[in-house]
Amino acid sequence: MSRFLSSRYRDLEAYTPGEQPTDMQYIKLNTNESPYPPSAAVLEAVNAEEVSRLNLYSDPTCKKLKAALASLYGKKSENIFVSSGSDDILNFSFMAFCEGSKRPVRFPEISYGFYSVYAELHGVDYTAVPLSEDFSINVEDYCHNDATVVIANPNAPTGIALTLAEVEKIVTSNPDQLVLIDEAYVDFGGESATVLTDKYDNLLVVATFSKSRSLAGARLGFAIANEQIIADLEKIKYSTNPYSINRLTLLAGEAAVRDNGYYMDNCKKIIEMREYTQKALRELGFYTTDSKANFIFAKSEQIGGEELYLALKQRGILVRHFTKEKIKDFNRITVGTRDQMDALLEAIREILGRK
Amino acid sequence: MSRFLSSRYRDLEAYTPGEQPTDMQYIKLNTNESPYPPSAAVLEAVNAEEVSRLNLYSDPTCKKLKAALASLYGKKSENIFVSSGSDDILNFSFMAFCEGSKRPVRFPEISYGFYSVYAELHGVDYTAVPLSEDFSINVEDYCHNDATVVIANPNAPTGIALTLAEVEKIVTSNPDQLVLIDEAYVDFGGESATVLTDKYDNLLVVATFSKSRSLAGARLGFAIANEQIIADLEKIKYSTNPYSINRLTLLAGEAAVRDNGYYMDNCKKIIEMREYTQKALRELGFYTTDSKANFIFAKSEQIGGEELYLALKQRGILVRHFTKEKIKDFNRITVGTRDQMDALLEAIREILGRK
Repeated sequence: MSRFLSSRYRDLEAYTPGEQPTDMQYIKLNTNESPYPPSAAVLEAVNAEEVSRLNLYSDPTCKKLKAALASLYGKKSENIFVSSGSDDILNFSFMAFCEGSKRPVRFPEISYGFYSVYAELHGVDYTAVPLSEDFSINVEDYCHNDATVVIANPNAPTGIALTLAEVEKIVTSNPDQLVLIDEAYVDFGGESATVLTDKYDNLLVVATFSKSRSLAGARLGFAIANEQIIADLEKIKYSTNPYSINRLTLLAGEAAVRDNGYYMDNCKKIIEMREYTQKALRELGFYTTDSKANFIFAKSEQIGGEELYLALKQRGILVRHFTKEKIKDFNRITVGTRDQMDALLEAIREILGRK
Repeated sequence: MSRFLSSRYRDLEAYTPGEQPTDMQYIKLNTNESPYPPSAAVLEAVNAEEVSRLNLYSDPTCKKLKAALASLYGKKSENIFVSSGSDDILNFSFMAFCEGSKRPVRFPEISYGFYSVYAELHGVDYTAVPLSEDFSINVEDYCHNDATVVIANPNAPTGIALTLAEVEKIVTSNPDQLVLIDEAYVDFGGESATVLTDKYDNLLVVATFSKSRSLAGARLGFAIANEQIIADLEKIKYSTNPYSINRLTLLAGEAAVRDNGYYMDNCKKIIEMREYTQKALRELGFYTTDSKANFIFAKSEQIGGEELYLALKQRGILVRHFTKEKIKDFNRITVGTRDQMDALLEAIREILGRK
């Protein structure tokens, strides 16, 4: 820390991304990437001719990408916001739609770890609401309150989803509060609330190209909402980094939207593989939540969460372990290909057999 | 504006990027892009195989790119920060190193228009210090003060540069204030203060790949400073958007650093073309500043700034006109290729001849 750092940030604890060790080649099941490459249209769109144009700025209005997303979701371009990853959009949203103690925020205690970081960063009062015993979100906890509501749906790292009716209940019971639904994982079996944004001016849905659309490394997120909310996000973007999306990512994103079928097929395969792996884990004595995401949240009766994580890492398989007390017995395991899942299961059998 | 926007941002005026009209093909001399494409090494590095890996997150530590920059500038990786464009880094710097009225900021009144936006965005008190009559920065105005100092060197849109000795004087006369030197345009004839960062712990140099390195569309900026200052910037980055740089830009940036000679040769060509164009403009009765950047700042005795801007636009040539009273007679003209400059001069001759 330098002697120049603002007192506001001296005690701030930054987010810890999933580890990316380079000491050996791992089977990476720790950051919820898609095991499938981007589609043919993306490979075609990001070509040498486009690389040779990188001397020119990208379009800060992201016109074509917005139009493609608007068409896919049945919205107008004015209802679409895009930026460099959904993290960027979540950050802007905490800035724009929360404010100290005047407009605090509430989100589940066990959820995406970045929410509390954003609240701390922007000096926003927050309530981390405990989950139910079974790790589900209790809808009543988010109804009729006096704070901005942020919910990941499906939730992470539990994978448990709210129904569309439950989300709508939260939205309608908070007419004067903004409700932000973070749908990073919705394409793996959840119900998207994007269908509700024309009806409710207090709903903001945030999504990403990083999971179901195989573009984690391109950094692209989007949001859908009423046009006033989108205009607020644009204002924050144009006050920080207007050209936040690079030229190649704009092209990749647009092509990915055009190739939607490819990605939805991949989601089906991932869902099948999730069910296959969960079943096998349960047969090995694991408890798993009812995940609707591209990851499994599992704990064994036989071995501690951290112990299993370390034993798998030793065998070249990375999963994500969280040290938070309430979930320390669990690991979050990204759903990969059949080969990757079989390697995982084999390693777990070996680890458990040895004990 | 939605009814949910924080009161902090209701009166905020966002930055206005240079226009990017799509009604026809323009000669774009309005956003200070390089007229030269990225080098062969960049084209090679950003290949189809790498595009097919976009399903995987980029390295948030940006290890290889930092190592390449450290080697080029004779620093350690701990002295290097990289993020998505220098705008991103400037934004983080205003957040991290300024604070309300406790640590205000001062910068030249005529300079990069984003400085005041960042100050407003983060609620930082600021002083916009007038330039001298001839648009130069008066060094004494930035010595022995009680605020963070931000200076673009060369300054924009004037192009006028401080010498290294002048920058060092500002740094040494403010031992307890951070001095940020924004060197977006330094490679076109300025003297870089990066050589001073080992000596002074209160100096932060911010730079970009957008101008001299032909990667405006890739979004990449970097900063060089004492390692504590870099650690503070990393903390802010890891609290907002840790994966802010995409995979392809990391590769492009690393390759561009390896091909430094190509870019420095381009800078020489641009400097030659700047001098050629300035001379021709002076012969046409223009006043031009002594620009050390990749743009010319020029006013005519015969025609107003806005009038010339509009007449050029009508002829398919975009330059940047600012409406601020003190510089409204000027236009900022990006230096392009010989063909582009000749087209500009021909258009200007025609416009002036018609009057």
